[in-house]
Amino acid sequence: MGAKNKTAITPTREEDYAQWYQEIIKASDMAENSPVRGCMVMKPWGYAIWENIMNQMDAEFKKTGVKNAYFPLFIPLSYLEKEAEHVEGFAKECAVVTHHKLEKGPDGKLVPAGELAEPLIVRPTSETIIGESMSRWTSSYRDLPILLNQWANVVRWEMRTRMFLRTSEFLWQEGHTAHATREEAVKRTLQMLDLYANFVQDRLAMPVIKGRKSESERFPGADDTTCIEAMMQDRRALQAGTSHFLGQNFAKGSDIRFQNEDGQEQFAWTTSWGTSTRMIGGMIMVHSDDDGLVVPPRIAPAHVVILPIVKKDQDNSQVLESADALKAALNEKMYHGRAVEVEIDDRDIGGARGWDWVKKGIPVRVELGPRDVAADTVFVARRDREAGQKESVDRETFINTITDTLDQIQQVLFDRALAFQKENTFHVDTWQAFEEIYKDAKGAHNGAFVYAHWCGSRDCEERIKKELSVTIRCIPFDSSKEAGKCICCDKPSEQRVLFAKAY
Amino acid sequence: MGAKNKTAITPTREEDYAQWYQEIIKASDMAENSPVRGCMVMKPWGYAIWENIMNQMDAEFKKTGVKNAYFPLFIPLSYLEKEAEHVEGFAKECAVVTHHKLEKGPDGKLVPAGELAEPLIVRPTSETIIGESMSRWTSSYRDLPILLNQWANVVRWEMRTRMFLRTSEFLWQEGHTAHATREEAVKRTLQMLDLYANFVQDRLAMPVIKGRKSESERFPGADDTTCIEAMMQDRRALQAGTSHFLGQNFAKGSDIRFQNEDGQEQFAWTTSWGTSTRMIGGMIMVHSDDDGLVVPPRIAPAHVVILPIVKKDQDNSQVLESADALKAALNEKMYHGRAVEVEIDDRDIGGARGWDWVKKGIPVRVELGPRDVAADTVFVARRDREAGQKESVDRETFINTITDTLDQIQQVLFDRALAFQKENTFHVDTWQAFEEIYKDAKGAHNGAFVYAHWCGSRDCEERIKKELSVTIRCIPFDSSKEAGKCICCDKPSEQRVLFAKAY
Repeated sequence: MGAKNKTAITPTREEDYAQWYQEIIKASDMAENSPVRGCMVMKPWGYAIWENIMNQMDAEFKKTGVKNAYFPLFIPLSYLEKEAEHVEGFAKECAVVTHHKLEKGPDGKLVPAGELAEPLIVRPTSETIIGESMSRWTSSYRDLPILLNQWANVVRWEMRTRMFLRTSEFLWQEGHTAHATREEAVKRTLQMLDLYANFVQDRLAMPVIKGRKSESERFPGADDTTCIEAMMQDRRALQAGTSHFLGQNFAKGSDIRFQNEDGQEQFAWTTSWGTSTRMIGGMIMVHSDDDGLVVPPRIAPAHVVILPIVKKDQDNSQVLESADALKAALNEKMYHGRAVEVEIDDRDIGGARGWDWVKKGIPVRVELGPRDVAADTVFVARRDREAGQKESVDRETFINTITDTLDQIQQVLFDRALAFQKENTFHVDTWQAFEEIYKDAKGAHNGAFVYAHWCGSRDCEERIKKELSVTIRCIPFDSSKEAGKCICCDKPSEQRVLFAKAY
Repeated sequence: MGAKNKTAITPTREEDYAQWYQEIIKASDMAENSPVRGCMVMKPWGYAIWENIMNQMDAEFKKTGVKNAYFPLFIPLSYLEKEAEHVEGFAKECAVVTHHKLEKGPDGKLVPAGELAEPLIVRPTSETIIGESMSRWTSSYRDLPILLNQWANVVRWEMRTRMFLRTSEFLWQEGHTAHATREEAVKRTLQMLDLYANFVQDRLAMPVIKGRKSESERFPGADDTTCIEAMMQDRRALQAGTSHFLGQNFAKGSDIRFQNEDGQEQFAWTTSWGTSTRMIGGMIMVHSDDDGLVVPPRIAPAHVVILPIVKKDQDNSQVLESADALKAALNEKMYHGRAVEVEIDDRDIGGARGWDWVKKGIPVRVELGPRDVAADTVFVARRDREAGQKESVDRETFINTITDTLDQIQQVLFDRALAFQKENTFHVDTWQAFEEIYKDAKGAHNGAFVYAHWCGSRDCEERIKKELSVTIRCIPFDSSKEAGKCICCDKPSEQRVLFAKAY
């Protein structure tokens, strides 16, 4: 499979992390930039990861009583005007539909025609239109709770885009719930955050820190924004999901009222929560290495590739039949609700074939030659190990332990990411030490996760952001009350918050 | 469950079929018109049907080697200009994005700003952008075939809309494949048509007729358009899916070239095929009755509703626990790859509760009172039977035969639809008889399916369309060669074609 000292990806993480990220996506054939500004094409290997995320997360949603629905792609302009904060948050940069047909102009070229009386906005989120529906659907406490989710595409006109992390169009899910009581809405907000945290840790093998945003980082109009933050291999943080408690603000804006059991009219309490294809960007940056992509088995498009050793001018039928039989035997095994999925790559292209699959991050590679067939063995390599590390395994044993093997790989990836996160997380108590961590950060090194005291003032938050490009990622739920002094202004603080540079 | 002589839906099919259709959608709570012109909101009961269709059809696609991908929502205007025929077909009525932000105007209102150098079209299909990608991905015969599918929303600015049947935004799947040989592409075209026909018959319980379109009804740019046609209860035809053989036309337009094994450069042979939420409109119109929606079990959002008989001032715990246990026992059973899905409706609202579920078309309703609990029985009603027809069944037997029961219902719906189609299909040989069938068609009666001879001329086709609003639905594959005379002009013909009024 080629000499080990030659890495598959140029540049390496250390040399140029941002460029390495782009090269990983290219080398694994996950996606590519499209000719449409800021939009990407998700190729089968990348889209299959999103499908696995969707299917598995959707099943978790449904267990909590959430139902899916679908709302229009377009939002009337007047809906955005209703909510001043909403406009500040989203509507500034958006795709505006102003015409509904094309006609041939004087020079024979097509030009927009049929101007709309009211322009339509391509949804940057469906918040307002779902609010309008909930308003019509809610008259009594018996109509509540409403627990909705939507899987859809949304558009935010981004100036600087990066595949999966920030694109003008992206795929996501947005959940919206309305409740009769504050307590129930708060509970749902945290329930969905927990669901996200468990999902991202369990399926994407990405350790996360749960917490709430500071006021300045809150979702516009939310009373409370909770989030999960993961550490990438360049030590920057990526927000992998958010869950918002909207109080009655959104219900007031959208007029979601109901009669309670005593016949009094009240505004509902609402929540919203979302995750997106951005998670895939996180997955790439947490697990991949200088050989290529690494995909956690539970969301991998395929689990095993079989590489039969074929020669052009030779009868390969025995090896090929043996590969088919191995595939069929593996397909019988179930792994987290799916059959173990197997690719067979019988191209006769030498070592490049094995490297192709290393780059694609498939969890297990199996070489199968005439001698393996004769001896009832398979030659196995795992993506969580060095590319050159392979072992001969009894064929039946390999088949019977495949799901254990996949779970081991899943666990190795999680443990490795958690160890990396812990190694790069510090408790810091002085500005000097804080500054030192971030000041010289460059390339793949962007400092660390730092737990430090903060007085709670927007001034300190702003100063830290301005001077070091470091933000408060969250006020972690697992950070116990502790007296201390603000890292920035020395004023008293009661709790450490999590600082990092962020995507 | 209310007196039987009172129908749940007003008007009935016979009274006003078009209005009945709208009322079915409303009464079953599947969907509603949105405040955005021509777009609908798919509510949970309606969207779950689409989810079941997607999941099951997607699994069928994948068995044939098709992989999913995702392409941008926007198409640059210049792409549409490349293909003259494409523009004629689609681009006339479409949503045009001309600006990328909103700003406050002089009167404080939001106005479009940031005009784009090149307008973007919201995809009416992804044909052109997928072609552009295929062109970049194809250089050698080794890169072929490319077998892609996309599940997505598309927009065609429709002036007259009807939920599910014709909306400005709708959900669909579009498959696009590229092949090295004509033969392979033709084979794929027919393979996907067969897949659609089997799917629609097997899952939606809608009998269909397979065939090819006449030249004038072909997809723009296709060498051959094949389709499946189903008969609605008003005897009109609905096209439920199409599969196109595009020859090399599309490859030439999009420059999809490859080197064959002999090193010669050639254009690829392509196909495309699609189905949409329109299928749900068809499902409604084929199976539903004057009591409400009827959903075939295999795509039903839920299979069984349990209606525990509860009284306000009474201890209902025993009945409610028994209902929970029944639900759990049913959930253990698998029906076509899903657990049997069960709703419990414990509202104390009298007979309206049962009717709600009749209207929603759930396949099986189970009443459960204290006496049933004591006797280990359940009181069962099936949606394929009269609403008042219920029977007491041993509880264990009910649980153990639930999947058989569901399959029986599925079969009854299919058989009933097929019988209706056959009863209303005629072989006609004279213009007088032909005219008679369609001339006085009104209300729920729109004539019939007629197999009649056609000379193959566009003139006759046009005349029939103009005079009777009847079109050639397809040249059926199962129609054997037979000498005859054109129904319209008496010229010789070799085959009967299928005529009908169409949606």
